[in-house]
Amino acid sequence: MFSKQTYQSRRQHLKKEVKQGILLFPGNGESGMNYKDNWYPFRQDSTFLYYTGINNIPDIYFAIDIDEDREILFGNDPTPEEMVWTGAADPLADLAGKSGIATVKPFGELAGFIRAQKQKGRTIHFLPPYRAETTVQLSDLLGIPVGEVEKHKSDAFIKAVVKQRSVKSGEEIEEINKAVNITAQMHTYAIRNAVPGKTEKEIAGDLQAIAIGGGGNISFPIILTKNGQYLHNHATQAVIGEGDLILCDCGAETAMNYAGDMTRTFPAGKTFSPLQKEVYNIVLDAHNSAVEALKPGIRFKDVHLLACTRLTEGLKGMGLMKGDTEEAVAAGAHTLFFQCGLGHMMGMDVHDMENLGEAYVGYTDNLKKSTEFGLKSLRLGKELEAGYVLTVEPGIYFNPFLIDAWKAQKKYSDFVNYDEVEKFKGFGGIRVEEDFVITDSGSTLLGDPLAKTPEAIEELKNS
Amino acid sequence: MFSKQTYQSRRQHLKKEVKQGILLFPGNGESGMNYKDNWYPFRQDSTFLYYTGINNIPDIYFAIDIDEDREILFGNDPTPEEMVWTGAADPLADLAGKSGIATVKPFGELAGFIRAQKQKGRTIHFLPPYRAETTVQLSDLLGIPVGEVEKHKSDAFIKAVVKQRSVKSGEEIEEINKAVNITAQMHTYAIRNAVPGKTEKEIAGDLQAIAIGGGGNISFPIILTKNGQYLHNHATQAVIGEGDLILCDCGAETAMNYAGDMTRTFPAGKTFSPLQKEVYNIVLDAHNSAVEALKPGIRFKDVHLLACTRLTEGLKGMGLMKGDTEEAVAAGAHTLFFQCGLGHMMGMDVHDMENLGEAYVGYTDNLKKSTEFGLKSLRLGKELEAGYVLTVEPGIYFNPFLIDAWKAQKKYSDFVNYDEVEKFKGFGGIRVEEDFVITDSGSTLLGDPLAKTPEAIEELKNS
Repeated sequence: MFSKQTYQSRRQHLKKEVKQGILLFPGNGESGMNYKDNWYPFRQDSTFLYYTGINNIPDIYFAIDIDEDREILFGNDPTPEEMVWTGAADPLADLAGKSGIATVKPFGELAGFIRAQKQKGRTIHFLPPYRAETTVQLSDLLGIPVGEVEKHKSDAFIKAVVKQRSVKSGEEIEEINKAVNITAQMHTYAIRNAVPGKTEKEIAGDLQAIAIGGGGNISFPIILTKNGQYLHNHATQAVIGEGDLILCDCGAETAMNYAGDMTRTFPAGKTFSPLQKEVYNIVLDAHNSAVEALKPGIRFKDVHLLACTRLTEGLKGMGLMKGDTEEAVAAGAHTLFFQCGLGHMMGMDVHDMENLGEAYVGYTDNLKKSTEFGLKSLRLGKELEAGYVLTVEPGIYFNPFLIDAWKAQKKYSDFVNYDEVEKFKGFGGIRVEEDFVITDSGSTLLGDPLAKTPEAIEELKNS
Repeated sequence: MFSKQTYQSRRQHLKKEVKQGILLFPGNGESGMNYKDNWYPFRQDSTFLYYTGINNIPDIYFAIDIDEDREILFGNDPTPEEMVWTGAADPLADLAGKSGIATVKPFGELAGFIRAQKQKGRTIHFLPPYRAETTVQLSDLLGIPVGEVEKHKSDAFIKAVVKQRSVKSGEEIEEINKAVNITAQMHTYAIRNAVPGKTEKEIAGDLQAIAIGGGGNISFPIILTKNGQYLHNHATQAVIGEGDLILCDCGAETAMNYAGDMTRTFPAGKTFSPLQKEVYNIVLDAHNSAVEALKPGIRFKDVHLLACTRLTEGLKGMGLMKGDTEEAVAAGAHTLFFQCGLGHMMGMDVHDMENLGEAYVGYTDNLKKSTEFGLKSLRLGKELEAGYVLTVEPGIYFNPFLIDAWKAQKKYSDFVNYDEVEKFKGFGGIRVEEDFVITDSGSTLLGDPLAKTPEAIEELKNS
């Protein structure tokens, strides 16, 4: 965990921003898999962790009472009999002390505390819950029907948290660098070991082992697939074959829950085919163009559209698209090949703060998210600021279902050469993804550089 | 999946057993980790899977209408636009067909179906939910407040499912054998690789990779620890040292969700110390004595007590316990060293059917679970039947907190030599666990045998 001052100062800023009421932070509980006590790996809520630094302890809540200027951690230390099962644990009072929280109360006192504040007419601020357990708890605590909890989330609290968590401090960048470097180790392993005869799951399992060995876990379900044309296609028992193009999109999170998220696409065999290289280089050009454009003040939506333009130019060069590039991009014709967004915020969540709402995290009151296919999957559109951490991940995906559907509808036929595209229905997909922090003058790559050109990937693969 | 006939016959038996009403099977949904769409690995509900064979598809429900003799799967096939993200999926109608389910309806029709059956005065049977999402769904579907859903679970449905799932068929045993053999590979790896300098999590990650590579996943969170004195102590970032005794309790589940669950305890260095060997052999003797006693008709509680007797005898031999063995075990003095139960049922859940309730799975109307320390953690007490699959896992755990607490209370001081026990507060814990199926005349070990004596473990370790 960071220093006591870090957490104290984070909470100080937050209190000033929200101004009044009680800020309620539900910590996560254990999450049952196939019965209540067979748990998925515990994952603390990121916002709870951001303001308290207390990880790996389920079933604790934190409250900041702005009105009476007090901070209380609600939770129970294990009994000696529970320690028969779990072993020793640091007392909650010690953990609270490390982050400068003065008061710890038994969990059983939480409900009474909330009731008392409500009776005083205080506002109880909470963030939108993403686990049903938390929704049910908040429903009980606040006397709101389960189906209506979401509606009562606090906009003021959300906006203050988003403002604060969006700008990463130096110590956070250091931690993200660690996550990205473990992520790069995973990719190095994948590039060398995802070879013909292995199953996708065998490699995915090994990648998860690297993430776990790094002290944390994977930051999201591993995509390791010979069917990269599907954007979030998780590893299966499919056996990798000689000509396969492998798309690996994975990331580690550190013991402090900071995430990395990278993608590399590489041949299962020793080398890319000339055609694979050609498409790869179009994606890489879009990637590099986008990275060069990163700086404070630019709208990420415009960086996205720049990447789309570069992809369209490249696809025109291959005879897959045609017509005026600007018109094609404005119409959305490129979304036949690039169906999603260029990137997203990254931090303690791999899609940082996604549960707080893209309207707050990625957009503003003046820039709302588009509802058009393609742009509606762009999670980040607003002007960048120094300290933002984000991914850049353009791609070209030959999705046979989409090609068939749009060809039948003659959709975008002014811009797409379907006869040529038809030949690529078995090609797969290519994505190149890296993580960046926005600096005062541009951006800096996070983590140490990893092979990115087709030539460098071939060299790494065969070294 | 098994043959269509398997699933049809399972459902046929179930219908006969419950006799009337609607049997409702909620399939599991995706489970969000740190935001809604960052998913833990999908895990289908075991009972849903047992009767439908449909795995890896979230958000589907199955209903058997006994009164009108019809079976309906409720769920939605992905849209072409969803397939941009997920790729192709087998149509639900095909999956339903493979298990002999004739009717598939859109998920949106489920609520109306349930409402109509309730209006006809039909009983809607459901099992106790273990995920809050399911509780909330059942609350909405059935018009029961969230906090009261559990109370309305169907005893008839629970009892029928427990009766059926408790006795494993030949094809199930084959699948469990697979799971146990992957589990044994994990242990072989751990014994050879959990050496000084590695962290617990590094090894745990590698073990999970073996489970995932086997086609499924881990069947429960991996226990790989140099602090084996704590029963469920999960892997941490602690570095393994030269003299450490490592306890590894882990299991794989297959792609069909059948579980394995084994424990081995071994030295981090090349050999056990003479003292470690001495304690190990006491546990092994208890283990072997218990295994020899397994047969249809014997109460597992009596097998547990037999193991406790053997442990007590051994601990007396070492001067750690004293007095009359039978009296010591009857008093519970051995629970200072063996705080839990001898084993549990195993199948599609590693603690098979735990969510259905131990009162049904492990006990009967005539044999209720004890509330005493030790026995209250014995998940299985009732008479064994041919086809039951269970674990045998005695252990000796020197838990310093418990030793301090009981010594201060002079608890069991007629039976415990605390002065001697004091010397073992840094010893750790030892457990030996294997999986068995009860046969007509005794039991059969599941999976291929794995090194179990100290000598065999040392040989495996150094080979």
